[in-house]
Amino acid sequence: MTTNKSALNVSSRAENVIASPIRKFLPMVLAAEKRGIKVFKVNVGDSDIAVPEIFLKTVKKYNDKNIKYAPSSGVIEHMQAWIKYYKNFNIELKPENIIPTVGCAEAILFAILAVTDPGDEVMIFEPFYPSYKGLAAICNIKLVPITLHVENGFALPNKEEIAKKITNKTKALVVINPNNPTGSILNEKEIAVINQIAKEHNLFILADETYREIVFDKKPTSFLQFPEVRDNVIALDSVSKKFSCPGARIGSIASFNPEIMKSVLKIAMIRLSAPTLEQFGMIPLLSNATKYTKKITAEYKKRRDIVCSFLQKMPGVVCSKPDGALYVIAKLPVSNSEKFVEFLLNDFNYKNETVQITPVEDFYFTSGLGKNEIRIAYVLNQKDLKKAMVLLEKGLESYLSVNKN
Amino acid sequence: MTTNKSALNVSSRAENVIASPIRKFLPMVLAAEKRGIKVFKVNVGDSDIAVPEIFLKTVKKYNDKNIKYAPSSGVIEHMQAWIKYYKNFNIELKPENIIPTVGCAEAILFAILAVTDPGDEVMIFEPFYPSYKGLAAICNIKLVPITLHVENGFALPNKEEIAKKITNKTKALVVINPNNPTGSILNEKEIAVINQIAKEHNLFILADETYREIVFDKKPTSFLQFPEVRDNVIALDSVSKKFSCPGARIGSIASFNPEIMKSVLKIAMIRLSAPTLEQFGMIPLLSNATKYTKKITAEYKKRRDIVCSFLQKMPGVVCSKPDGALYVIAKLPVSNSEKFVEFLLNDFNYKNETVQITPVEDFYFTSGLGKNEIRIAYVLNQKDLKKAMVLLEKGLESYLSVNKN
Repeated sequence: MTTNKSALNVSSRAENVIASPIRKFLPMVLAAEKRGIKVFKVNVGDSDIAVPEIFLKTVKKYNDKNIKYAPSSGVIEHMQAWIKYYKNFNIELKPENIIPTVGCAEAILFAILAVTDPGDEVMIFEPFYPSYKGLAAICNIKLVPITLHVENGFALPNKEEIAKKITNKTKALVVINPNNPTGSILNEKEIAVINQIAKEHNLFILADETYREIVFDKKPTSFLQFPEVRDNVIALDSVSKKFSCPGARIGSIASFNPEIMKSVLKIAMIRLSAPTLEQFGMIPLLSNATKYTKKITAEYKKRRDIVCSFLQKMPGVVCSKPDGALYVIAKLPVSNSEKFVEFLLNDFNYKNETVQITPVEDFYFTSGLGKNEIRIAYVLNQKDLKKAMVLLEKGLESYLSVNKN
Repeated sequence: MTTNKSALNVSSRAENVIASPIRKFLPMVLAAEKRGIKVFKVNVGDSDIAVPEIFLKTVKKYNDKNIKYAPSSGVIEHMQAWIKYYKNFNIELKPENIIPTVGCAEAILFAILAVTDPGDEVMIFEPFYPSYKGLAAICNIKLVPITLHVENGFALPNKEEIAKKITNKTKALVVINPNNPTGSILNEKEIAVINQIAKEHNLFILADETYREIVFDKKPTSFLQFPEVRDNVIALDSVSKKFSCPGARIGSIASFNPEIMKSVLKIAMIRLSAPTLEQFGMIPLLSNATKYTKKITAEYKKRRDIVCSFLQKMPGVVCSKPDGALYVIAKLPVSNSEKFVEFLLNDFNYKNETVQITPVEDFYFTSGLGKNEIRIAYVLNQKDLKKAMVLLEKGLESYLSVNKN
């Protein structure tokens, strides 16, 4: 027996998890509200767009007296609804190719666990959705960033530049498409590059397609459509954005690779099941998806145009007009956007109103990048969004007048 | 650049996850049903007891047009309902001491991630709920089993025997109380031993108290009640069994250790939130818990008595009358209970009926143990449960008449 005399310590992997950069300003927001200031929140992808009524109607029709576990592989009718949904993209899944999950977050976790061991590497384009940092920490893997730039619309570097980052520890490449936080979408050439790299180097493609339908001038796509990477692709999906219901916590993980899906099912069994009521509620939406996603996307397109028209006329601001998702990144004429966000919440108001945006630094993995960038989530109705943009404009003027940078 | 020329392989940690021993016989059950045989299922803790009506009534009253993310720390009113619930046990939690989770499974995952790094050890009494094996595999930790025995009612060994297993890698001791699968509950002396060990060796106590209220002759307790291990205890809970609604996927993780809860909150942020509708639906149940749990526990007690009265008169069968939860383990006069389960599903019927039970071997970590044991979950109404027990009796007779072991 060896006595463990160390203190009761938190694990190193837990220490390595950063607090959500999107959620950490909450105390300042509450303080501003306490001072009577109205805060227009464009910081988080929690949209004001209502979920289609059929969702709650269906949940309310649930008349079983029991709320039993769903199968780990999903309520059968729900899983069939996902299969029907994927047919819209000419993707023919069998039941063993897809498992409903608790949001896309769980789908990402399952995919990372299925393809990596501790110490393995996963490549990811930065800036990226920061939950990937936390997932990498708790799964003990190393993220290898490939930096993109607002100035060229977050275009991917060429194949050789990407392949340079591959080591014998590299297991997968994460592709968020359409992208959170950049709002960019991959063009055909970029998709071909990713597929070639995955094929040549035996890498998995973790295709996070949460925002699949929210594209403004192109057709929605999926990496599952490409037969040449049939065994490489693991598609990670969510109902949260396409049907505007993030609190329903329903997503899915899909792959044509039978070994991967066998492993994912075993992992899914550990946590038993995704919530039963929401699986039922989602059946009509997934079965008739385009009807709902078209309307939601049309609204986001209008909002995108509002946000960009404001940003484009703001002196010293650089932004790349997004092609999809519900975010835009803007480079501001400030040296530290986190300080600017704090200024907006703590020291600024215009007629007792202010705006909350998100600094982008924590969306980068490489330290020092993104310090002067912000993300705007266009999650408010058009009238409020215009107000938020006016407040941002006035806030920036005011900040620059007192901070000479 | 090093080219990764290996094939597209599943990770080792995923390979190490075993399929659920409770769910793996499903194909045989479906085949039996196809042959017209009615299968009485006492294999899984998915009870026929209805959820209290107030749950679905409350969900159906939800009238927000949005299904927004809940806070990662939980819907405020839901978290307050948990705090009120814990006051029943004289446990005074503050909001920062508790976070709602997606079932107890997520609470266990968060606790393991918060206290262990890969290679660390966690002690656990065997037999135990098999999801812990899967969680250990995906979290890359080593489970160190301490074997208990049906013959003495699964009593814990003395302090020295337990402490022998501690190494400088040991971070925690898992205690499932009341226990799944044994149905045993810890007595005061056993609790004192665990608390002393945790205190002396600086170990966390992961107290899985999913079945807290389902105790037949004693008062429900929690490890959170003991001030001497205030910093050591992490309580893992679920509404699944106490309110008979496993498909709601709501649990919680609670601790007075501020560093642990800070880490757990950061981990919780990665997955955003537990489902919104069920958090609302659970508020009235958690706020007035005893009213509902008393009724449910009274029903399980009657069922426990039925199951035990059958088992006790079956020749060669050894069982320990459970004091809680909804399971009993029986040692059968067979050499391989998995083969017996297969016999019941594939080769046996009595008037076109048979019974599904669970072999216990996979609930042990030490290889070779539990081969002649089964678990019965008393999840059927009393009439059906009696039928299931008659079928088990007849099935065992029939099996023994053709298998001389």
